[in-house]
Amino acid sequence: MVQVAIAGASGYTGLELLRILLVHPEVEITAVTSEKHDGRPVSEIFPGLIDASSLVCHALTKSELARRADVVFTALPHGTAMTTVAEVYDAGKKVIDLSADYRLHDRRVYETTYGKHERPDLLEKAVYGLPELHREAIRKARLVASPGCYPTGAILALAPLLGRGLINPDSIIIDAKSGVSGAGRNPSQDMLFSEVQGSIKAYKVGEHRHTPEIEQALSLAAGREITVSFTPHLVPMNRGILSTIYVTPRPGADLAGAYAAAYKDEPFVRVLPHAQLPATGHVLGSNYCFIGWKEDPRTGRAVIVSAIDNLVKGASGQAVQAMNLLCGLAETAGLGQLPLFP
Amino acid sequence: MVQVAIAGASGYTGLELLRILLVHPEVEITAVTSEKHDGRPVSEIFPGLIDASSLVCHALTKSELARRADVVFTALPHGTAMTTVAEVYDAGKKVIDLSADYRLHDRRVYETTYGKHERPDLLEKAVYGLPELHREAIRKARLVASPGCYPTGAILALAPLLGRGLINPDSIIIDAKSGVSGAGRNPSQDMLFSEVQGSIKAYKVGEHRHTPEIEQALSLAAGREITVSFTPHLVPMNRGILSTIYVTPRPGADLAGAYAAAYKDEPFVRVLPHAQLPATGHVLGSNYCFIGWKEDPRTGRAVIVSAIDNLVKGASGQAVQAMNLLCGLAETAGLGQLPLFP
Amino acid sequence: MVQVAIAGASGYTGLELLRILLVHPEVEITAVTSEKHDGRPVSEIFPGLIDASSLVCHALTKSELARRADVVFTALPHGTAMTTVAEVYDAGKKVIDLSADYRLHDRRVYETTYGKHERPDLLEKAVYGLPELHREAIRKARLVASPGCYPTGAILALAPLLGRGLINPDSIIIDAKSGVSGAGRNPSQDMLFSEVQGSIKAYKVGEHRHTPEIEQALSLAAGREITVSFTPHLVPMNRGILSTIYVTPRPGADLAGAYAAAYKDEPFVRVLPHAQLPATGHVLGSNYCFIGWKEDPRTGRAVIVSAIDNLVKGASGQAVQAMNLLCGLAETAGLGQLPLFP
Amino acid sequence: MVQVAIAGASGYTGLELLRILLVHPEVEITAVTSEKHDGRPVSEIFPGLIDASSLVCHALTKSELARRADVVFTALPHGTAMTTVAEVYDAGKKVIDLSADYRLHDRRVYETTYGKHERPDLLEKAVYGLPELHREAIRKARLVASPGCYPTGAILALAPLLGRGLINPDSIIIDAKSGVSGAGRNPSQDMLFSEVQGSIKAYKVGEHRHTPEIEQALSLAAGREITVSFTPHLVPMNRGILSTIYVTPRPGADLAGAYAAAYKDEPFVRVLPHAQLPATGHVLGSNYCFIGWKEDPRTGRAVIVSAIDNLVKGASGQAVQAMNLLCGLAETAGLGQLPLFP
Repeated sequence: MVQVAIAGASGYTGLELLRILLVHPEVEITAVTSEKHDGRPVSEIFPGLIDASSLVCHALTKSELARRADVVFTALPHGTAMTTVAEVYDAGKKVIDLSADYRLHDRRVYETTYGKHERPDLLEKAVYGLPELHREAIRKARLVASPGCYPTGAILALAPLLGRGLINPDSIIIDAKSGVSGAGRNPSQDMLFSEVQGSIKAYKVGEHRHTPEIEQALSLAAGREITVSFTPHLVPMNRGILSTIYVTPRPGADLAGAYAAAYKDEPFVRVLPHAQLPATGHVLGSNYCFIGWKEDPRTGRAVIVSAIDNLVKGASGQAVQAMNLLCGLAETAGLGQLPLFP
Repeated sequence: MVQVAIAGASGYTGLELLRILLVHPEVEITAVTSEKHDGRPVSEIFPGLIDASSLVCHALTKSELARRADVVFTALPHGTAMTTVAEVYDAGKKVIDLSADYRLHDRRVYETTYGKHERPDLLEKAVYGLPELHREAIRKARLVASPGCYPTGAILALAPLLGRGLINPDSIIIDAKSGVSGAGRNPSQDMLFSEVQGSIKAYKVGEHRHTPEIEQALSLAAGREITVSFTPHLVPMNRGILSTIYVTPRPGADLAGAYAAAYKDEPFVRVLPHAQLPATGHVLGSNYCFIGWKEDPRTGRAVIVSAIDNLVKGASGQAVQAMNLLCGLAETAGLGQLPLFP
Repeated sequence: MVQVAIAGASGYTGLELLRILLVHPEVEITAVTSEKHDGRPVSEIFPGLIDASSLVCHALTKSELARRADVVFTALPHGTAMTTVAEVYDAGKKVIDLSADYRLHDRRVYETTYGKHERPDLLEKAVYGLPELHREAIRKARLVASPGCYPTGAILALAPLLGRGLINPDSIIIDAKSGVSGAGRNPSQDMLFSEVQGSIKAYKVGEHRHTPEIEQALSLAAGREITVSFTPHLVPMNRGILSTIYVTPRPGADLAGAYAAAYKDEPFVRVLPHAQLPATGHVLGSNYCFIGWKEDPRTGRAVIVSAIDNLVKGASGQAVQAMNLLCGLAETAGLGQLPLFP
Repeated sequence: MVQVAIAGASGYTGLELLRILLVHPEVEITAVTSEKHDGRPVSEIFPGLIDASSLVCHALTKSELARRADVVFTALPHGTAMTTVAEVYDAGKKVIDLSADYRLHDRRVYETTYGKHERPDLLEKAVYGLPELHREAIRKARLVASPGCYPTGAILALAPLLGRGLINPDSIIIDAKSGVSGAGRNPSQDMLFSEVQGSIKAYKVGEHRHTPEIEQALSLAAGREITVSFTPHLVPMNRGILSTIYVTPRPGADLAGAYAAAYKDEPFVRVLPHAQLPATGHVLGSNYCFIGWKEDPRTGRAVIVSAIDNLVKGASGQAVQAMNLLCGLAETAGLGQLPLFP
């Protein structure tokens, strides 16, 4: 059994880690931390986890956290995660960071986007935890930077096309729609039920922090600098990200072939037949990414649509997928849950 | 491996059976039927089941259905299920019926409530599939009548109290609130998104067909005739039933003791500490029934609240629980999924 | 034109007052206050009120507030409203208080329920602002205590029956279901979209602060002390309260007659034909209260269901109805808006 | 008083016409028709209209319909509306058609998109009922083709820029998100609550019938042929369309100036300050169109976002606005209702 700890267990990604790991056949949860809920059982913080009442949150020191587990998941806010990750890493343990702190390779980009980085030396140790692109590196990693929710949906849809030079790299527009759980569990007026229900809006247009993360991965795939238009929207639903992506394919580009080549053996990516498009409701509660696309001869553009559950493939499920890899377990262990519909 | 068939796989309870049984470790699905979708893969009917594309719906004859499996789940409308169940039973196979056709022991009550019964001889063979009350009988049964969604939530909350004579048996009022998936997948104006969203209503007040089913089980528990007020409501959410139940306890009645005695070893019923009440969101996607209660000295009443997922403990999960019992498997096999929140 | 001020304009009842009063034909809004948003236009706080950008919130002193208007609406939290109301009253102006501070006639009941009362001398000056029961008193009042949302739905359904002695006064159970806007606009984890969506729960069972308010009004109607079971629930929708009420009618009681006599000339109460029950979606955005009921000969009980929009008839609409009365305007002025559906 | 009839009153746009016209100060509704509900009061079809119970739906002949009113609104499906509109027109009355039947000037485009046109002679008589672009023509019209919901949001956002040559006309991508009421009130599995709630999807990508309508209006504005990418999405909410539009402005283009010039005197279009973007929740229940935009120097694109209520400015409110114009009433008569929030 792999002994794992979860640092920051009281938010939605923390809960989702618990939901997956409590029934993972190869895992034992040996510690869960929360500054705010020191001493409280997780079953009080999440009443649905009533059978996990022996699991109690503690405000552990970083060294104590590192001591308690083989693998530590950090589900902390960016900035806060940074030093916890570093200390666990320095103690020789494995760490999977769900924050943004180790996702960007370029310190300057990080600091422009998020603020000062305390441990830039670790940026080059961190492997970007998208198994479909970096499986082998993850297997050997000790520090995995688990991808953001928006980047996951966008990168999986675009990387196979950019990698094969099938689209005009300047043509990319990503119009993404997210459920509300992505905003986390901290109280804010904007995320009150009455503010969100019955309404849709765009936010942080042209300035969302996931933009450089998307561009870093796409640039790597394309072998050149990529700039994208990225517009996130808030949708009145709990979970799910739908990314509607506009690109201009090169004449004769074989999108179907590219997707098949990239994903035919992937356990969690499913490419739909041409012109069939996914809904977020098709992947809810599962670790799947569904991808569909349609070409529009009138405009010369193609529309690609990907759907993920932001808390599973977009966060905690993908983090567990990475843990399976770096612990030498079956990649799909603990992640077999089918989508919940309706 | 137990070979199972699902008759009527294109509705929500059919899908929920698929979701559970496709990853059940001891089960192989050998047939799925649908009159309407003859020849279509289940992955077309439910795009989330993309990996189950080899499973194809067929309009099988009843005898063919019986031939194909050890256990048949009938997820058909009442009236339609009746003869399918009977033919599978007559062929010597086991059948778990999710319709109402074999739930009522008294043919006259059935016929007053639902219409003519074609096989009243089987009513006495049928075991009411609530494991918490009839576990041993289910183990030996060949025909299980799986309980209705509203009855499950109400009976689990009330039977321990009635069985011990702790409440005034004439005082029972059940005010139940259900998500919309209970209404099924057939198109109707009443169940359109725009008709339901943003509104709550009571329906079939004093005349819902689950009333005699509830009263039959409560009468059995109490050892006398029980009549209840039962008011179902439609709530703008997909899943979940919250039953708010009003009773008058006998002076000195020990409700906590009764619940503990009844449920302390139950794998799927959880009794909350006094005055802590469940939300349907706490059990979503799981086979749990959560029960809480609170006494009100001002009025001499107690308020009991139970929460289930209508498609799991209220339908398909409970049916699988019964299957596990009658096939000699671990009762919890395939049902370990934790609640999905949010 | 009546000059009105709104104290506490940045919450949902404040906004609803603005929505109604900005297009009220006989009203001019001369001041809006907000401690938190001093200096901000209301169009910033509520972007939908873009055309009201000249209306700016100020943190006015109580005396300045009183000076600015003929009628002041106080949409402040209880406790805070208390002294503002008193000072406006003392300054000789009319005040309509949407808080609970002047609703309870008995100081001891208030203090047990809410805490210390600073101006108990005014409790006897305050008229309970339910026009259907106290129209003439409201016309002459200078201080109106506008009813709570839950009490409005419950009292309108029950007062005509209690007043005529048609029901067993000890039999009353009120199972109420509310939209989320009733919880206000202050951030709290419990009211985040992701906590509320897809779930229903009971809360404050047997101890909600609206209970004594309901009992006070029903006792007055019955001419004797009334105690009720009152269970509020939180429903995943923005607006609306559905009250499902259980009572035991006296033999031969004519409920239809009682309702007709009470409400046949009322502009905002509509009694549905026997056995037809309202949904909250039928009254959304309007000042209506719809009432339906159904007798259940099996149990000897009757089920009464009332539906209101908690922000209109349950708060701001009713407050404007009272204002119309105490200013000698047509009672329906500014309140003609029909329900919005879907 | 203008005497108006509504043909096809039992759908959502029919109800919305009723909601507006029943309280319109200059209008008397003299007939409402419905094939399906012949003889039923509208208060049965829409319980919220309880006070309109004297208004009864009838299956009137077309000539009888024309006889009964000065202005007829046709809220019928396309194809069905066609001959009703024509007969009313031929009878010398005014008609405002909410279907698509008279929106496309080019018969071939209509027939490719919708099927055979029975009265192509009337296509040139019809005025496209977008007051912001065709106010004077509407005043003089007898046949108004009221715009589609998606076209309204897109055209109002784009026409001022195309008309002034400020954007690259080949760069237009319209990613639109709609509430469910746009799909109408006819039962279909796709629009069941449980299919829609908690999920978002794109549909009819690159082939939605509103595309030629959008392109016709934009081509007219631009003075050249315009082709757009148009992707509609279904969002789990009742009302509202958010259009997120991507364009490439010409260097130095003054978008703010263009919008100000176009809309500064418009009663129902509001342009937000730069970089402030609307939500559909800001306009719910109102006839407003809110427009915001933001330039993105990184990509050279601008993102324009418009928000309307699809049933008001996107359908019935806009139709009443046109009626006001062609009857010589104040353009805003009956349309003063402020947005409902939350």
